[in-house]
Amino acid sequence: MSVLKVGIVGGTGYTGAELLRLIAGHPNAEVAMITSRAEAGVGVDELFPSLRGYTDLKFTVPDVSELAACDVVFFATPHNVAMKMVPELLAANTRIIDLSADFRIRDAKLWSEWYHEEHLCPELLAEAVYGLPEKKADQIKDARLIACPGCYPTSIQLGFLPLIEEKLIDTSRLIASAASGVSGAGRQAKVDNLFTEISDSFKAYGVSGHRHLPEIEQELSEAAGSDVALTFTPHLLPQVRGIHATLFSEIRDPAVGLDELQFLFEKRYADSPFVDVMPLGSTPQTRTVRGGNMCRIALHRPQNRNTVVVLSAIDNLVKGASGQAIQNMNLMFGLEESAGLNGISLLP
Amino acid sequence: MSVLKVGIVGGTGYTGAELLRLIAGHPNAEVAMITSRAEAGVGVDELFPSLRGYTDLKFTVPDVSELAACDVVFFATPHNVAMKMVPELLAANTRIIDLSADFRIRDAKLWSEWYHEEHLCPELLAEAVYGLPEKKADQIKDARLIACPGCYPTSIQLGFLPLIEEKLIDTSRLIASAASGVSGAGRQAKVDNLFTEISDSFKAYGVSGHRHLPEIEQELSEAAGSDVALTFTPHLLPQVRGIHATLFSEIRDPAVGLDELQFLFEKRYADSPFVDVMPLGSTPQTRTVRGGNMCRIALHRPQNRNTVVVLSAIDNLVKGASGQAIQNMNLMFGLEESAGLNGISLLP
Amino acid sequence: MSVLKVGIVGGTGYTGAELLRLIAGHPNAEVAMITSRAEAGVGVDELFPSLRGYTDLKFTVPDVSELAACDVVFFATPHNVAMKMVPELLAANTRIIDLSADFRIRDAKLWSEWYHEEHLCPELLAEAVYGLPEKKADQIKDARLIACPGCYPTSIQLGFLPLIEEKLIDTSRLIASAASGVSGAGRQAKVDNLFTEISDSFKAYGVSGHRHLPEIEQELSEAAGSDVALTFTPHLLPQVRGIHATLFSEIRDPAVGLDELQFLFEKRYADSPFVDVMPLGSTPQTRTVRGGNMCRIALHRPQNRNTVVVLSAIDNLVKGASGQAIQNMNLMFGLEESAGLNGISLLP
Amino acid sequence: MSVLKVGIVGGTGYTGAELLRLIAGHPNAEVAMITSRAEAGVGVDELFPSLRGYTDLKFTVPDVSELAACDVVFFATPHNVAMKMVPELLAANTRIIDLSADFRIRDAKLWSEWYHEEHLCPELLAEAVYGLPEKKADQIKDARLIACPGCYPTSIQLGFLPLIEEKLIDTSRLIASAASGVSGAGRQAKVDNLFTEISDSFKAYGVSGHRHLPEIEQELSEAAGSDVALTFTPHLLPQVRGIHATLFSEIRDPAVGLDELQFLFEKRYADSPFVDVMPLGSTPQTRTVRGGNMCRIALHRPQNRNTVVVLSAIDNLVKGASGQAIQNMNLMFGLEESAGLNGISLLP
Repeated sequence: MSVLKVGIVGGTGYTGAELLRLIAGHPNAEVAMITSRAEAGVGVDELFPSLRGYTDLKFTVPDVSELAACDVVFFATPHNVAMKMVPELLAANTRIIDLSADFRIRDAKLWSEWYHEEHLCPELLAEAVYGLPEKKADQIKDARLIACPGCYPTSIQLGFLPLIEEKLIDTSRLIASAASGVSGAGRQAKVDNLFTEISDSFKAYGVSGHRHLPEIEQELSEAAGSDVALTFTPHLLPQVRGIHATLFSEIRDPAVGLDELQFLFEKRYADSPFVDVMPLGSTPQTRTVRGGNMCRIALHRPQNRNTVVVLSAIDNLVKGASGQAIQNMNLMFGLEESAGLNGISLLP
Repeated sequence: MSVLKVGIVGGTGYTGAELLRLIAGHPNAEVAMITSRAEAGVGVDELFPSLRGYTDLKFTVPDVSELAACDVVFFATPHNVAMKMVPELLAANTRIIDLSADFRIRDAKLWSEWYHEEHLCPELLAEAVYGLPEKKADQIKDARLIACPGCYPTSIQLGFLPLIEEKLIDTSRLIASAASGVSGAGRQAKVDNLFTEISDSFKAYGVSGHRHLPEIEQELSEAAGSDVALTFTPHLLPQVRGIHATLFSEIRDPAVGLDELQFLFEKRYADSPFVDVMPLGSTPQTRTVRGGNMCRIALHRPQNRNTVVVLSAIDNLVKGASGQAIQNMNLMFGLEESAGLNGISLLP
Repeated sequence: MSVLKVGIVGGTGYTGAELLRLIAGHPNAEVAMITSRAEAGVGVDELFPSLRGYTDLKFTVPDVSELAACDVVFFATPHNVAMKMVPELLAANTRIIDLSADFRIRDAKLWSEWYHEEHLCPELLAEAVYGLPEKKADQIKDARLIACPGCYPTSIQLGFLPLIEEKLIDTSRLIASAASGVSGAGRQAKVDNLFTEISDSFKAYGVSGHRHLPEIEQELSEAAGSDVALTFTPHLLPQVRGIHATLFSEIRDPAVGLDELQFLFEKRYADSPFVDVMPLGSTPQTRTVRGGNMCRIALHRPQNRNTVVVLSAIDNLVKGASGQAIQNMNLMFGLEESAGLNGISLLP
Repeated sequence: MSVLKVGIVGGTGYTGAELLRLIAGHPNAEVAMITSRAEAGVGVDELFPSLRGYTDLKFTVPDVSELAACDVVFFATPHNVAMKMVPELLAANTRIIDLSADFRIRDAKLWSEWYHEEHLCPELLAEAVYGLPEKKADQIKDARLIACPGCYPTSIQLGFLPLIEEKLIDTSRLIASAASGVSGAGRQAKVDNLFTEISDSFKAYGVSGHRHLPEIEQELSEAAGSDVALTFTPHLLPQVRGIHATLFSEIRDPAVGLDELQFLFEKRYADSPFVDVMPLGSTPQTRTVRGGNMCRIALHRPQNRNTVVVLSAIDNLVKGASGQAIQNMNLMFGLEESAGLNGISLLP
């Protein structure tokens, strides 16, 4: 099999670095170019010395015609960048995997409300496939344009999906209390994300409305066949990687036992190489997925009351971003779903 | 005013060290003796070099007759220790502030279910006062025996109390997603609490039932005038100090606005020196209470839907343990409620 | 005794916040004004919520005539700010405690080499007193202008001074391998100091020449009566507070035993309330000085060879900055040297 | 090529877990058995959930006759275990890679002084090869018994070797100030290594004599052709992985410039896949080697004086233990030196 030529737009952030790390170990893909306007000309390994010895690439100024020579282009950019370049790349038959939020929301008006911009190519929103492989593998295979889910949305949807698809819970009042490592905030210089501001402390943020809410509600509503309502409270952890979601919902029929729920989850994810339904009684730790593409899930029903608690843990930079993007690439190009993604998490 | 003579039983843990730190700066109290069977004869400052220069005390073997010479004895012990010594000390007119769980649950049978032991002095359970000063200041003033609340219970009750007292929320389905620094687990040698097991990771634990649940339900039910049901999910943070509780509840009357709730909280805690109701839009960080006795609270109502989110942060070793114990002592002995507790939190 | 009116210039950094925290507990001083051009009009407790309830101050635009009404003005600014305002304030009989580097180097030319600026008031360099109380208490008492030592220089000088004053070591090849918490880098938005860049990692920096080198060599040479040469290698720790210096030197006379050195250190610092010479065999941990003004020192002589190893630990924001500044203020105004500085370090 | 059958003795520690992680990605080796007396019968992935999905192995009671069926046995045990089993395994033609200290010191008497035990098979000490591939590749290829270097010794020797081999420095007074993540202390329950004791703090330890000293002096003396003397001061970092060594030595001929030293290092390690001599001006961060087998080195000569400073960083669990062990296995069995060791370090 020939090797896929990959382009990465916006390579100076953590998801860019993570794409480089993962693709370096991928048997069927290699990075042909990586762009950064600010760092053009600089060696990738100057910014990320962990890559010394593994790459000779230099950052280049993004150029659509050069990128169009790639088989697939990943956007590891803030929102509002991909939508400026995607139409031209699609026209050149380059396939797109967008890690940003530009194509996640199918309703352009809703997108504008949350991202405070006009969408530049609303005509592509219907075509874009929301790239959660555990939900949309079939559509991903044929997609030209993938909108990779956000990190929180990945962990939250994987935890709620089996319950919602089987209509086992009251979807009018879902609660997600989730916590993320700081790498989710990117590599921008901000006082709030200094070591001295984050270390040894914990806080909620975005409580009144986080941008990941609408994509979660969109996708869970689709799965439910009706509108779901989610209260989503994100928190910031004093750690680099990892998202942990604690999901609360009311079971409709109290007679459905925890064992049945466990069986349901195991069956639902039996063919998903990157979802690990842990044995009853478990609690996933984020470090058990650090650096890996796995989502670990555990189910609880405290005091045997009617509230089901689902725990879900991923590495926000891998299954929550760059790993999932590669998982999508694998599906799009008919490769093994787990190609390049079998690295074991780093513990301790 | 004369200076209170304080005895501390079980001084080798973190709450013991914290009592020493705080009482060293208290104008009306001094530690007369501190006990530890295992470390008897060892200087307190050998175990805690931060105290070098501030104390000459050595640990002694606990002896009830010697302790009885103190005005007040603090138990900074695991559960099951205080109840062996308290009756004799009370008989000697020594007042007791128990930081452990021995006297928190008024129902001896319920206590036994959660703590897997027979209670040794159930006859004292009715007399013991649950030492949450913001709820029971009047009873505390006259108490001989105080059962200090657990760390989680303090943060959770202070966040729910105003809503419950005013019957504003549905108490049949309260949810508390809370997270604690590791110092809450004490100073015992356990693989699970090694730096290498905790650092850079996050997990839930005790999901099926944490021992702090019954005391929270007991006290909130008392405030509600009827049984409340709480789903309580604790998590472990990769940080030393701090508890953060994220509390979800359904408002009964959607017409009650967030401004009204804010006003209610501010009024409820107007005379409480250690509860800080932050301005609307705030999110408390645990580091803003690190080392201090403050509980910081903020209110949210996401998307103006019916779920109210209360955020509450304390230092588990101070307002969640040793600081609150001293606040109780101050009330019991007619001192200024904040005596010795005005140290400002360490930030950064 | 009347209460000193304190002004703070540059209050939005960590040393400014720390001055506020410490002076809030000082019996003879209060902050009358705190300046910040960028945050003028903002409440101090908005930037530092740990101060909520303890201060009503707002940041103001720095104004020399207003500052001149203070008894003493602290500069908690980057270098190059104090020297613009100090002459005018001195003329108004306001005493100055400068936490920055502007007046630490007595040779204006040397200062310019390291700080890449012309010095604006070289005529004051001879008058400025280097504010290391354990070395210059007498001069500090009469000083109008104090140049507080840097954080590394404080820890390194306190460790070398007794050996150098007694001419016990070869001063032609001193080595200091020191490590600092990130708070030493201040509260500026920089990618290098993000949590994600610092956490779980360690590195040396400034190996070829750190600005703290010349002030250390200046002061140690003064103590030696001849030029000393120091190789100073700073490192950055994944922690917020704390400096630890590991000092290597060759003993001149191998017959001088470790016991004698220990006795020498204990005698040298017998009257220094903030230097703790620990027992032989000890190793100071930075957490035992976290938040406190203490410097803890321990002596070693590995394998009884000729290299003496001195370990020295301080809190860079307290004994290395704001605490030492207040210690200087106490001496300047005839107060108890330890007034306001007796808070015990936060452990754990 | 057939696949090597690997046995691991002592698999419940961090180096055992790391061997499993690395061998899982090795093209020519697989773990056939892993022993633990305490956890016999327990699934490896119960102890290390990061391995869920990658292994079905269970811990077994160590049995020499079963281990003898392996091509190679790794000892990931505390010292004193390997030497009880090695003679019998060698007799059965099983090759041994010992990660413990049992065979590192060629002088049995010296070994006993530092490890406080009689050596049980001193006759094997002469045959055992000290497994630092960058120094002894040729001997490793033919070895039956490899004594893997300690973690500190690896980082320190790689930094000093080129200078010593070329007789460029004074070897009578070498200084190594090194710092290690806590994983170096293993997975034993000890109060000193609790998160609450380590986090946000830094200290020296073992200053008077650390067990890694004799093996460093032995090997560097061999390289020098005469006895070297090293002052070695280890420190404990508040991080999980990583060793950083800061090495000080005096250059014999001040005319030898830093450029020449840099050239020398680059040449010395030109064929070493796991030593990265960074460009002049660099400072290696431990996170750039986290999870990888690389040693990154940088050279400095502060103020152009005569003290050369070499900085050296490794992951203590990989190049300092399990990765180096596999590198040795690769050499012993004629495999590609880097087989299974090309995983890129996890950054951030």
